[in-house]
Amino acid sequence: MSTQHEAVILVSCPDQLGLVAHLTAALHEAGCNILDAAQYTDTLTKVFIQRIHISCGHSDDPKSLQEKLTPLADEFQMKINIRWMDETKRVAIFVSKEDHCLHELLLLHRDGDLHCSIDMVISNHEDLADVAQRFGVPFHYIPISNSGDPDAEQQQTALIEDNNIDLLVLARYMRIFSDTFTQKYNGKMINIHHSFLPAFAGGKPYHQAFEKGVKLIGATAHYATAELDEGPIIEQGVIRVSHKDSVKEMIRKGRDIERTVLARAVRWHLENRIIVHNNRAIVFS
Amino acid sequence: MSTQHEAVILVSCPDQLGLVAHLTAALHEAGCNILDAAQYTDTLTKVFIQRIHISCGHSDDPKSLQEKLTPLADEFQMKINIRWMDETKRVAIFVSKEDHCLHELLLLHRDGDLHCSIDMVISNHEDLADVAQRFGVPFHYIPISNSGDPDAEQQQTALIEDNNIDLLVLARYMRIFSDTFTQKYNGKMINIHHSFLPAFAGGKPYHQAFEKGVKLIGATAHYATAELDEGPIIEQGVIRVSHKDSVKEMIRKGRDIERTVLARAVRWHLENRIIVHNNRAIVFS
Amino acid sequence: MSTQHEAVILVSCPDQLGLVAHLTAALHEAGCNILDAAQYTDTLTKVFIQRIHISCGHSDDPKSLQEKLTPLADEFQMKINIRWMDETKRVAIFVSKEDHCLHELLLLHRDGDLHCSIDMVISNHEDLADVAQRFGVPFHYIPISNSGDPDAEQQQTALIEDNNIDLLVLARYMRIFSDTFTQKYNGKMINIHHSFLPAFAGGKPYHQAFEKGVKLIGATAHYATAELDEGPIIEQGVIRVSHKDSVKEMIRKGRDIERTVLARAVRWHLENRIIVHNNRAIVFS
Amino acid sequence: MSTQHEAVILVSCPDQLGLVAHLTAALHEAGCNILDAAQYTDTLTKVFIQRIHISCGHSDDPKSLQEKLTPLADEFQMKINIRWMDETKRVAIFVSKEDHCLHELLLLHRDGDLHCSIDMVISNHEDLADVAQRFGVPFHYIPISNSGDPDAEQQQTALIEDNNIDLLVLARYMRIFSDTFTQKYNGKMINIHHSFLPAFAGGKPYHQAFEKGVKLIGATAHYATAELDEGPIIEQGVIRVSHKDSVKEMIRKGRDIERTVLARAVRWHLENRIIVHNNRAIVFS
Repeated sequence: MSTQHEAVILVSCPDQLGLVAHLTAALHEAGCNILDAAQYTDTLTKVFIQRIHISCGHSDDPKSLQEKLTPLADEFQMKINIRWMDETKRVAIFVSKEDHCLHELLLLHRDGDLHCSIDMVISNHEDLADVAQRFGVPFHYIPISNSGDPDAEQQQTALIEDNNIDLLVLARYMRIFSDTFTQKYNGKMINIHHSFLPAFAGGKPYHQAFEKGVKLIGATAHYATAELDEGPIIEQGVIRVSHKDSVKEMIRKGRDIERTVLARAVRWHLENRIIVHNNRAIVFS
Repeated sequence: MSTQHEAVILVSCPDQLGLVAHLTAALHEAGCNILDAAQYTDTLTKVFIQRIHISCGHSDDPKSLQEKLTPLADEFQMKINIRWMDETKRVAIFVSKEDHCLHELLLLHRDGDLHCSIDMVISNHEDLADVAQRFGVPFHYIPISNSGDPDAEQQQTALIEDNNIDLLVLARYMRIFSDTFTQKYNGKMINIHHSFLPAFAGGKPYHQAFEKGVKLIGATAHYATAELDEGPIIEQGVIRVSHKDSVKEMIRKGRDIERTVLARAVRWHLENRIIVHNNRAIVFS
Repeated sequence: MSTQHEAVILVSCPDQLGLVAHLTAALHEAGCNILDAAQYTDTLTKVFIQRIHISCGHSDDPKSLQEKLTPLADEFQMKINIRWMDETKRVAIFVSKEDHCLHELLLLHRDGDLHCSIDMVISNHEDLADVAQRFGVPFHYIPISNSGDPDAEQQQTALIEDNNIDLLVLARYMRIFSDTFTQKYNGKMINIHHSFLPAFAGGKPYHQAFEKGVKLIGATAHYATAELDEGPIIEQGVIRVSHKDSVKEMIRKGRDIERTVLARAVRWHLENRIIVHNNRAIVFS
Repeated sequence: MSTQHEAVILVSCPDQLGLVAHLTAALHEAGCNILDAAQYTDTLTKVFIQRIHISCGHSDDPKSLQEKLTPLADEFQMKINIRWMDETKRVAIFVSKEDHCLHELLLLHRDGDLHCSIDMVISNHEDLADVAQRFGVPFHYIPISNSGDPDAEQQQTALIEDNNIDLLVLARYMRIFSDTFTQKYNGKMINIHHSFLPAFAGGKPYHQAFEKGVKLIGATAHYATAELDEGPIIEQGVIRVSHKDSVKEMIRKGRDIERTVLARAVRWHLENRIIVHNNRAIVFS
């Protein structure tokens, strides 16, 4: 007896006539039914991008689908990424001392709203060990002597590799990784940081925002890249402030919007809704 | 020499395996390239809905596409609605005395942001004749003795039919149509009305909203149906108010959100982004 | 040696000339400095309302301020409510099975963002005992046989009275109180409930919202009164949904907005920012 | 017989004990009733700021109030700004070719929602002459050879001074003024500009925003200062965009948020709700 499998396929290739027809036909022949499909054509770079949610009734190994699509992929120079829904993605959460983003992710996961396992919390401080423990998640304390500390990164990498981690979430992890590390996990590491209109250079951004009298403060979730806080933007949000808000209150409101925006970005990644093209994150909502 | 035509196709039919594959293949055979496609399956009623944006290089009558898809439509009980982009939709705007929604639509149209012609403004008052005139739009004054006035509706219907109007926009038209009229233009008439949390029965809603001390006021754009203010919801928006806002100020804020929400609904309708299924408006954004 | 005390005073009385001058002078004579003041005059009922944040350097009992203001209060028919900041308000949280609102309040409290003690969690189910326990808050399981169950209300009242509870927060407590109970805690009990545009009567509101295809779902925090979900509105919020959101996803989004809106309402109450006049909650932001 | 006059008073001075009491007493003695008052103390600079809305029943010249408050102002180093509501502020609007902000202001003014007269439109292009004309506002075409063109600024200044203009609104006026000009109208000139998270340097900001794949675009209204786009922020707003929005569509959405944000800033300025302290705009809402 065969069981039904669902998968999300992300496809990108140079745009050309008949792509959708060929891809659809190939999936049909492979015994797949299309539950949902969304596409986007980048008109500047002439690149075709499609997200296809399928179900397959095959008794054989679901991985054989990749092979069945290989001739088509070769013909059209397609990059094909298949995510089977019955494979659980494995997530590691990096934190420092603040737990608002960590709590958000743990609670969402517990309620079944994040399609993954949370396999570990890694921190450069011991403060949040008990939060991880309460939710039954292993906590790894790896102190950092300075940014890009090679010993610490080696320990982190070992944990990630030994546990086959698929996604790293930087949930207010206040340390910078080396270029080697960010490149290794390119497209697999999501960061959250505060954002302001206009943007400020230098330290103590909330103090600067207060001094400028901004009326909105925001947060941006993005894939982490070597250039700090410059990777492809997944999601953004803002919250209103006024002259009455002290720096402390602005930081509190900032936490509120950070956790919400980060959680959306992580959920979309886990649902294979995001494809990065030309340093832009295309999000199929 | 052939010219390129673009069209948006809205399809709905009972859900079944292979629909996307068959439809895509039929469009490919008909010489169409798929520029964008989005689909939705209503899991309660098992109905498949798809919006497909195509381009066709055919030299022959674009209307022949409908014929080419007929066998498929018959086989799968498909409703197929094709909107060719080089056919301009014709719009009539109904107003009474308030012009904020009218101005919004006329300015958007002038800036090329509404894909239609605005063929006439119809009103039960003469107040806004000069606004229509400034934008070069014919203005028809049709006084109404009482709601559902058959003489007035006859004149309105004659204007609409004689001018092959495709869409009626009720831009703060403060009169009620007869059931006959609303049924005749079912799915072709968009209305805007204020909305509150919670909703109020009875007259003077802004006064009631003030008395209840609501913190948000909203607007809903929907297709007009026989049951007043109950048709399929196309778009909604809200704006924040406080105890400091007088009834007058709340009405002003309400106008702000009404015009924005109505304009979005009209634009989406003209881009064939909306399909009504089971009294719900599915909006392909 | 005298210490400095801060207080928030809420004043309401029939409007008349010179009120601010007299009140300000009386506070000045009583040795108070005004840190912040905001006022509102209800033009319909001719009622003057003011919130005054003061500091006092007196060595004597801060409660003597009330006495010093008595002559003024008598002269102008003033209701005066003084909340000393160094008195901690005592809060009881009522829950059933859902913990998103409870977690929000416990985390905010732990971070020092709620000016109160959380003295107990009361529930008609045992599910959330461990959440309360983790945060070191006593948990009281009081099962309810039917709405307005007099035995249960007697136990609840005993707990509230014995512990001098100042505020009851209904954080998704899914049972209805008797009129006696709601009247007893009038203005001291905050509830959160979902809100929709338009509103729906009857059960399963999220299913109805899905069927109507609403584009926004909301939440309203209000003081609980005998008429269910009809008390003075403290705060409201909305979140965007689309036809793609299943009922489950709409409920998840609803939880997100509920916890945020409830937390704001509770914080404002604890900061003595709210005065109810004529069934409207005036919120001094 | 005396008539009733209303005024808004903005006060700022070094913070000290008893300020509110003294000021309130002085206003009471001067025969003023306080309709509304809001205050703010900048804790960093120890500066007290208050906005007081009063009514006066005096038969004598309302300007005498300023004199009556002089002793108090001297004693406490107060800056006192009195705006009588029966004096109409005079406004000049500067535009180039885009009219969305101009239309917004003209329509709001026509509806009685801006407490001012609109005395002229000044432009470096002739395109919008007919818009001004329709609303009966004089249009002055002053071409600009290059930024800070002294001849043009001389003509502009002459118009402003000869007509006793109180407020200059830069409603998408795409030219830069000289430092002399901006200093002359410091605190009397409101500008609107697009804002992004993060901000972009260089030209074509919407193209950059598109390339970065931002999810929000915003607008900031501020007082114009010598440093372009860096003056005190009055109001900010954002609107959501996605990868589906073309640069053209992003510009359209940007226009939508620009006009709304600018109109709010202008309305608040005209209601004397804004005081600039330490390069921050304190807005009493």
